[in-house]
Amino acid sequence: MSQRQVRPGGKAAEAASADHGPRTPDAHAIAAHGLCRGKVQMVPKCPTDRFEHLALWYTPGVAAACREIVRDPARADALTNRANTIAIVSDGSRILGLGDIGPAAGLPVMEGKALLFKVFGGVDAVPLCIGVHETEEIVAFVKALAPSFAAVNLEDIAAPKCFRVLDALRRDLPIPVWHDDQQGTATVVLAGLRNALAVVGKRLDRVRIALIGIGAANMAVYRVLKAEGADPARIVACDSRGILHRGRRDVETAGADLAEKWEVCRDTNPEGRTGGIGEALHGADVCIAFSQPGPDTVAPEAVARMAPGAIVFACANPVPEIDPAAAKAAGARIVATGRSDYPNQVNNSLAFPGIFRGVLDAGARRITDGMIRAAADAMAAAARDKGVREDAILPRADDMDVIARIAAATACAAQEEGVATLPVTREGVREGALARIGQARAAARALSDAGVIPTGAEVAALSRSP
Amino acid sequence: MSQRQVRPGGKAAEAASADHGPRTPDAHAIAAHGLCRGKVQMVPKCPTDRFEHLALWYTPGVAAACREIVRDPARADALTNRANTIAIVSDGSRILGLGDIGPAAGLPVMEGKALLFKVFGGVDAVPLCIGVHETEEIVAFVKALAPSFAAVNLEDIAAPKCFRVLDALRRDLPIPVWHDDQQGTATVVLAGLRNALAVVGKRLDRVRIALIGIGAANMAVYRVLKAEGADPARIVACDSRGILHRGRRDVETAGADLAEKWEVCRDTNPEGRTGGIGEALHGADVCIAFSQPGPDTVAPEAVARMAPGAIVFACANPVPEIDPAAAKAAGARIVATGRSDYPNQVNNSLAFPGIFRGVLDAGARRITDGMIRAAADAMAAAARDKGVREDAILPRADDMDVIARIAAATACAAQEEGVATLPVTREGVREGALARIGQARAAARALSDAGVIPTGAEVAALSRSP
Repeated sequence: MSQRQVRPGGKAAEAASADHGPRTPDAHAIAAHGLCRGKVQMVPKCPTDRFEHLALWYTPGVAAACREIVRDPARADALTNRANTIAIVSDGSRILGLGDIGPAAGLPVMEGKALLFKVFGGVDAVPLCIGVHETEEIVAFVKALAPSFAAVNLEDIAAPKCFRVLDALRRDLPIPVWHDDQQGTATVVLAGLRNALAVVGKRLDRVRIALIGIGAANMAVYRVLKAEGADPARIVACDSRGILHRGRRDVETAGADLAEKWEVCRDTNPEGRTGGIGEALHGADVCIAFSQPGPDTVAPEAVARMAPGAIVFACANPVPEIDPAAAKAAGARIVATGRSDYPNQVNNSLAFPGIFRGVLDAGARRITDGMIRAAADAMAAAARDKGVREDAILPRADDMDVIARIAAATACAAQEEGVATLPVTREGVREGALARIGQARAAARALSDAGVIPTGAEVAALSRSP
Repeated sequence: MSQRQVRPGGKAAEAASADHGPRTPDAHAIAAHGLCRGKVQMVPKCPTDRFEHLALWYTPGVAAACREIVRDPARADALTNRANTIAIVSDGSRILGLGDIGPAAGLPVMEGKALLFKVFGGVDAVPLCIGVHETEEIVAFVKALAPSFAAVNLEDIAAPKCFRVLDALRRDLPIPVWHDDQQGTATVVLAGLRNALAVVGKRLDRVRIALIGIGAANMAVYRVLKAEGADPARIVACDSRGILHRGRRDVETAGADLAEKWEVCRDTNPEGRTGGIGEALHGADVCIAFSQPGPDTVAPEAVARMAPGAIVFACANPVPEIDPAAAKAAGARIVATGRSDYPNQVNNSLAFPGIFRGVLDAGARRITDGMIRAAADAMAAAARDKGVREDAILPRADDMDVIARIAAATACAAQEEGVATLPVTREGVREGALARIGQARAAARALSDAGVIPTGAEVAALSRSP
């Protein structure tokens, strides 16, 4: 029995050569997931080819490393993989645009995220989908984890719970805690919007912005845009019940639970506009949607009522709130989505690998707003250096040079803001990031060449059904 | 900047070529740990060489896999790496023989364990050293983890806490939970003792056995030996205060906390022997020590008082309770230790990779005593097939054929006991295990050849100081 044959799903790949027509994209994705049976795996980081290595990595040798850490706890970062390892934690309560589908069904997403962390950032990330859902339980779980990790990436946790979890963990843990749906999203939106505004020749402090959906993502976008100079008086936000305004008693009476949303009711939309998405978009220069998957969440008619040179970020996953072609036909000049298979991907995958690379290389104790801003600036500048156009406002997620620049900007900002524990230089972090990402890709190639993981051709073959 | 140069510690390896003499084993182990900066890492399990792969493994393609799991939760095992992934959980309260050194200092051991799980068992194991120590907290943590894992390996948790944690988790979780210091240890001791007794020509139901130390390990050994026919009336156990007997008021009055130990006080040592290790070993055929690291925990004089053809298992890590040469000189005929650098390694690493391979391949819902017995029998038989001798009572931990036999025996026992969820055949599991382990080793070789991880030569070079 050859090694290849028993690789899970190997037979499916062989069978696929008897071609009976194209699979739907969904069917292809499921078949591809079934071929690989997972997106990340554990492999050695040390040699194991001699029996003597056992006495080095396990007993008795390992005891010397343990005692060294007892002597000086910081040495754990030099003697284990902790300094390069993060946890991705989700309770499955808000997976993509699929909603509260639970931890097991969220695993493919968290594994995908761990994959991107490695091949785009050289970061070892452990996907942990957990079976507890109360704020206190999630906080207790992550606190218990902390001794084994350099940082924590919270993911796909429903609002407003995610705000409380993040606040508690940022307050109590000595390592950085990041909620990607908040900070990661805000980073990419800020970078994309900067460049989109440059293309259409408008200024952030003058444009009218409609925020469609006001969950974790747009709440963070709102805060970052405000900090960057956007005028709350020119912002109108919409939740599933319609436009937010001072008369939204349902939000006001919810108290602490919806404190963030009530803040938006109070501070935006001074003219007291009411209605739904159509009314919110009326006259808007910018639409930033993180709401229900489309394609009919935002109607073409609503886009048609936006100002000339309209910018539409339709970021719901897996299906944008409006089809990009429909938005363009309705008059939008720049359209962005969360997907990699359309132009202008506004997706966290542009941000988190580089940002975490920088965070880890600086040994940052936390991730500040200044670091987020620096990362967004680096991302936007990298795209401008290559030339921004209507269909290219952001770099591609797999551009190593861009990722390395983001890492360097993040690490230097950490140092400037006094949260770094390791000395860094821009050039040092950039080169280190390039090398680490290069190694991650070399590892992927080596595993593929050795027949340990399926090849791209085997996956492609599954796009046609057997 | 070459990829090699930035690999952590690369410079140390280069510098080591300017040789100034041998390092101590401890200094070499620390330098080697510092060169590799960890023993396991995350790498892709799927191809990532094309940009289109992003749309398959992440949004939008991943959503199809998520929905498929919503439709049928069991599909998570086919569409993610969960079915081959286990958690190694320790609170650091009883690391090797080092005691309660805490979670961070325990990381090198758990990483080492994860390494062995992969290269000896083809199992993806995540090392999790946690910062909570109460029984209820550990239980809650592991329960929260469960949706992401196929099984849990508890490790180096102090007794009696470990008994409560294991009992609660085995009762409440639908996946197998194993405490390696209990079941893993008992498996290897049983296999080793079977063959040792065969060499000296004695029977398990007739021999006098002294158990030195009665923590998690020897408590499990006691139970398994009793179940296998050892006579409690011929067993004498010792804790740090001396021999256990019916007059041990300190144990009796401790109540539920020391319930297991009180059972031993009641059921063994009917003649009411008292005293310390010397008295416990008087006339014993077998000494099984899992107590304080040596080399002076068990005195040569005590071994000299054992019966002719004495068998001594001195299993403390990192330093055995008595030096093997000293035990031999004192009259022991067979001496075993926990270490790979002496003959007769009685170490869990012989058991857990194969057992978990079998558990995962059978989709076992739990690990029964029958599975443990079957694994021990397979391990002992594998050694006998190669010929057992005084200095070779057990197979070597890296013998793939032995591991595959243990996996097959475990999986078949799971099926016989009605806890398997997947159909298995002995030959199928054996071949699958060989292929999986072969792949893990192929991955290690490929990474080493590609310059992604250090080579054995680089590690060896560190044995001499620069």
